[in-house]
Amino acid sequence: MKKQFAVFGLGRFGGSLVKAFSELNVDVLAVDLDKDKVNEYAEFATHVVQANGIDEMTLKALGIRNFDHVFVSFGHNIEGSILTSLLLKELGISQVWAKAQNDYHQRVLEKIGVDRVIHPERDMAKRIARHIVTDKMVDYFELSKNHSIVEIRATDKIHNKTLVELDVRAKYGCNIVAFQKDEDTIIVPSSDYKIQKGDILIVIGHNDDIKKFEGEGV
Amino acid sequence: MKKQFAVFGLGRFGGSLVKAFSELNVDVLAVDLDKDKVNEYAEFATHVVQANGIDEMTLKALGIRNFDHVFVSFGHNIEGSILTSLLLKELGISQVWAKAQNDYHQRVLEKIGVDRVIHPERDMAKRIARHIVTDKMVDYFELSKNHSIVEIRATDKIHNKTLVELDVRAKYGCNIVAFQKDEDTIIVPSSDYKIQKGDILIVIGHNDDIKKFEGEGV
Ligand SMILES: Nc1ncnc2c1ncn2[C@@H]1O[C@H](COP(=O)(O)OP(=O)(O)OP(=O)(O)O)[C@@H](O)[C@H]1O
Ligand SMILES: Nc1ncnc2c1ncn2[C@@H]1O[C@H](COP(=O)(O)OP(=O)(O)OP(=O)(O)O)[C@@H](O)[C@H]1O
Ligand SMILES: [Ca+2]
Ligand SMILES: [Ca+2]
Ligand SMILES: [Ca+2]
Ligand SMILES: [Ca+2]
Repeated sequence: MKKQFAVFGLGRFGGSLVKAFSELNVDVLAVDLDKDKVNEYAEFATHVVQANGIDEMTLKALGIRNFDHVFVSFGHNIEGSILTSLLLKELGISQVWAKAQNDYHQRVLEKIGVDRVIHPERDMAKRIARHIVTDKMVDYFELSKNHSIVEIRATDKIHNKTLVELDVRAKYGCNIVAFQKDEDTIIVPSSDYKIQKGDILIVIGHNDDIKKFEGEGV
Repeated sequence: MKKQFAVFGLGRFGGSLVKAFSELNVDVLAVDLDKDKVNEYAEFATHVVQANGIDEMTLKALGIRNFDHVFVSFGHNIEGSILTSLLLKELGISQVWAKAQNDYHQRVLEKIGVDRVIHPERDMAKRIARHIVTDKMVDYFELSKNHSIVEIRATDKIHNKTLVELDVRAKYGCNIVAFQKDEDTIIVPSSDYKIQKGDILIVIGHNDDIKKFEGEGV
């Protein structure tokens, strides 16, 4: 059976979730206190309901028990977010994910059994600061606590060199898994491709190895 | 010379940026209208100033011309965000990045020359919806419009198979670049590693090829 999704709170995060599910052709119920929000999202959600998440009778009337995955996305209404999340867990929803406003909010959400706490603004801010500060690094993706995939821009230093000449794996322990040339060309490395200045190298490995390669090798 | 950063607006996004720069040991100037915000971020920012971004005299007095990269992060004050960004570009700041509240806001910011428009809530929402809907997909990272790196969980279907046996590149056009076993083990593929059910495959390629592999191959 298809999973049933619901989103409480149609701010930028909750509203974008509803649009994203709709683009992926997934049914989604959208709930907000605010009539204007409910009208705005009527074209994206499968159902929209104007209701207060902290009202247990309403939640029951909505048949929320039958949902598999519910999001709670009230940023400023911390009390409402906590209460709604608590009711949803008590009603037996298997996955309740909530957006947190701050660390205190996060700790309470975790205590009451919320399955995942989301911090969109904080996570995006960390990502952007990291990109900017490391000059050659264009973008990165954390695989685990210590491993990442990063995009590193090729400089003069390795212009016209092949992968065999560079021998990155032996020298640094990390691996070049692709090159990006323009907007949408990805070259899966062949041993005779000559790297051009400005190419973006896509490198996978332990963060320490990548840092070393980025500092000395490229 | 070291780059000079400034953040206008200490909401969740702007505030997290200031903390992230501070953790990376980068100097940052933090500005907000609100006295409480200014006090809250005094311990993280190199300098904090209580000021209105739309006040040109204040901007000049702050010596903002000497900054290389300035963020404008007022979500609800759309007018203030537009005006502040415009003034910053007119004062010659090379990189002005602003957070947008909606598509209209984004279009105006682009028109006045803002160098990057940021949508933390929308981007995170897209990311999360996509993870959840594609069941085998654990996480993904967009390399370009049509290419991605995705994490795909290995099922019974390929348990105990080696890369040579799978021959993913020839059959699907995409490439397995690593395996992840537990929290922090990444195995760079060797041709004789036997994939275990539950391993996470890290796959790079064209989105269509990845989708095909995910649907039929794993
Ligand atoms: N108890 C509640 N029940 C239903 N909807 C609610 C409740 N409390 C708040 N909301 C709705 O949640 C939405 C988001 O609230 P708010 O704007 O405070 O969050 P936010 O975190 O700033 O959002 P974002 O940053 O994602 O735009 C609003 O449309 C509001 O009407
Ligand atoms: N003209 C201005 N000059 C300086 N600071 C301003 C100005 N207008 C708004 N701010 C500040 O910007 C901060 C962020 O504003 P707001 O909370 O509306 O944004 P937001 O997009 O909801 O933030 P976030 O979602 O990142 O928490 C507030 O602390 C506010 O005082
Ligand atoms: Ca991951
Ligand atoms: Ca907000
Ligand atoms: Ca927000
Ligand atoms: Ca990128």
